[in-house]
Amino acid sequence: MDVKEFKHKTQVRVRTFEIDFQGIVHNANYLKYFEIGRIEYKRNLGSKMIRSGEFDDGTKVVAVHNSMDYKGFAFVDELLNIYTRISWIKNSSFCFEQVIEKDSDKSVVCEGKGILVNLNPETNQPEEIGEKFVKEIEEFEGKKLKIVI
Amino acid sequence: MDVKEFKHKTQVRVRTFEIDFQGIVHNANYLKYFEIGRIEYKRNLGSKMIRSGEFDDGTKVVAVHNSMDYKGFAFVDELLNIYTRISWIKNSSFCFEQVIEKDSDKSVVCEGKGILVNLNPETNQPEEIGEKFVKEIEEFEGKKLKIVI
Amino acid sequence: MDVKEFKHKTQVRVRTFEIDFQGIVHNANYLKYFEIGRIEYKRNLGSKMIRSGEFDDGTKVVAVHNSMDYKGFAFVDELLNIYTRISWIKNSSFCFEQVIEKDSDKSVVCEGKGILVNLNPETNQPEEIGEKFVKEIEEFEGKKLKIVI
Amino acid sequence: MDVKEFKHKTQVRVRTFEIDFQGIVHNANYLKYFEIGRIEYKRNLGSKMIRSGEFDDGTKVVAVHNSMDYKGFAFVDELLNIYTRISWIKNSSFCFEQVIEKDSDKSVVCEGKGILVNLNPETNQPEEIGEKFVKEIEEFEGKKLKIVI
Repeated sequence: MDVKEFKHKTQVRVRTFEIDFQGIVHNANYLKYFEIGRIEYKRNLGSKMIRSGEFDDGTKVVAVHNSMDYKGFAFVDELLNIYTRISWIKNSSFCFEQVIEKDSDKSVVCEGKGILVNLNPETNQPEEIGEKFVKEIEEFEGKKLKIVI
Repeated sequence: MDVKEFKHKTQVRVRTFEIDFQGIVHNANYLKYFEIGRIEYKRNLGSKMIRSGEFDDGTKVVAVHNSMDYKGFAFVDELLNIYTRISWIKNSSFCFEQVIEKDSDKSVVCEGKGILVNLNPETNQPEEIGEKFVKEIEEFEGKKLKIVI
Repeated sequence: MDVKEFKHKTQVRVRTFEIDFQGIVHNANYLKYFEIGRIEYKRNLGSKMIRSGEFDDGTKVVAVHNSMDYKGFAFVDELLNIYTRISWIKNSSFCFEQVIEKDSDKSVVCEGKGILVNLNPETNQPEEIGEKFVKEIEEFEGKKLKIVI
Repeated sequence: MDVKEFKHKTQVRVRTFEIDFQGIVHNANYLKYFEIGRIEYKRNLGSKMIRSGEFDDGTKVVAVHNSMDYKGFAFVDELLNIYTRISWIKNSSFCFEQVIEKDSDKSVVCEGKGILVNLNPETNQPEEIGEKFVKEIEEFEGKKLKIVI
């Protein structure tokens, strides 16, 4: 994945308690960085998480898949760039692709993706993604993303 | 605090992701170990945490104070003993005292205490601790703990 | 993945601080449970993590890939069974497959895998996996796992 | 503690995975916020943590005490202000005082302090705090802080 093809970027600094017994960022913490990227991506489009576990536009999503490829080690106090994009939208699910690189030398530390499912906030059952969401993401990413099966 | 004066003990093993950039258990993780001790103390008396944020006997508590004195360093994969007792009960609050020692050489790693407040689960306002709780704890600890002011 | 085909199982209890703003185990925490499973798998074969970031038999490994499929939600205080196996061994890498199920009703919560690379502890460069490790794992799993390319 | 009497402030946003089963920031996470405040306080004076577990000016510190009083609940996505000051310096130890407030309504969520000990990086034994550190902190805080016993 080429970071130049991502339209959203946010940053985190590696904290002392994110380092593990090998002196490197623990592999599970990249999922936390991914989540920060995903939430900031949505904030950039105008919505945020609220106490009920939903976004304030009434949508609720949960992860059904996450995967990560580790390309390098990140160390304490390093500044990391998190690049986030949505790469496809299906009926009730969509896919985030993400890259984490060191701000210092732009080397990639971790790449990955997550598939999220849109839920009905009442029933917690999968629900069709609304047109408003599709339009908003396609406009931001500058391309068609909806896959009709 | 002398561990021989505690009637409840549980164990945790230090996990790789609880170690920090100095190669030791990060200081915040002892609060997680304390919480495990407190919940196992209550489980031993027959109640457990449920999804609504309460115990299954209908009581709800939150911490208003925590303090810890660090006496040593704990390292990856070490087995730790968590000793927990309730040292006093007031109208709507009570105090946990806790000691964490290494199982290997019985050296103390961390001592501390936490003050919890009993809440009305509806209003989230402090509420008098019921007699059942006081009696149960006093019986377990084998001494009077209720402080009437 | 059928849990009956796994020879190693360990348990964790979901802790209060592993629950997130949606009232369920946060998706990153399953990687921590996976790591607990992997380390207990190795302990069962006689080796453990030590302070230098290696196993006490002198081997050092790091994750190059992790993936997870979430099949359900786990809630506070639930007891989870972590099933772990090694499914293949290549020249310098090997693959863990894992399933996490609820102990209560045996429903699967999360499935996933991780690819680990064997490093030279001095240079931190990939190094051929020793025959001793291959033999030990193949004996435990009861099948040939080494893939020669 | 009055936040107007603090000269250092940094911010964190509450993340989804920092919320616990009661829908509030878990009490242990405030120690992580405190640590972020402490490290940013030091960064503001020109030094940062490095991989060896020390600051890049060669000093090494560990916590021997932490305490927190919780004054309110913080919720997902809230922006928190972390105020940090050093309140005294003794021979080999010094004390951080900290307040965490909500940026939205300036209500205090948590107050606390931590006592850190200066270690010899070779021996990990307590060592007298250098004059350079004392002078730097006293200049920043605008008052005498060294306590000679």
